[in-house]
Amino acid sequence: MDNNSERAEIILKDHRKSIDRLDAILIYTLGERFSHTKAVGKLKAEHNLPPSDPLREEEQIKRLSQLAIEADLDPKFAKKFLSFIVEEVILHHKQQQN
Amino acid sequence: MDNNSERAEIILKDHRKSIDRLDAILIYTLGERFSHTKAVGKLKAEHNLPPSDPLREEEQIKRLSQLAIEADLDPKFAKKFLSFIVEEVILHHKQQQN
Repeated sequence: MDNNSERAEIILKDHRKSIDRLDAILIYTLGERFSHTKAVGKLKAEHNLPPSDPLREEEQIKRLSQLAIEADLDPKFAKKFLSFIVEEVILHHKQQQN
Repeated sequence: MDNNSERAEIILKDHRKSIDRLDAILIYTLGERFSHTKAVGKLKAEHNLPPSDPLREEEQIKRLSQLAIEADLDPKFAKKFLSFIVEEVILHHKQQQN
């Protein structure tokens, strides 16, 4: 391995350490987010509120797309991300019902 | 609307405010994470390193599953989440190549 490759390996390792730390933030933040959506699911069930709220969802997509642009991400990614999260939220609500 | 429903609406609003704040953390953290994976992609291309690293990916799944358990999440979700992220990383790498 030449000097350049060695340097590349060190830089790669540093990036991976950052990625691992960021993943811990992401997983814990998702845990916190799901604790709120679980509470929302319970609240809605107890008060006979409709499970989905299209206006709220529309606002969330708009807001997340704006945040994505600010964070140098594709705004399309924000929509994909919200769908991914909502899929899991629906799974939790089904588990709560059982 | 009775007192109970009014109270439920207020609690719901508070949960949504928390969810919106957590979404901002998630989007910005993902932005930071993707900046590292883009740098990794560039580094690997420059130094002719293999684009995928199955051992690293296996370690990441193991680590994320453990973090998910600690954060009171389904460890299966961690695997799904990593796949979702990796899909986007691959998309970025393709865009970098073009």
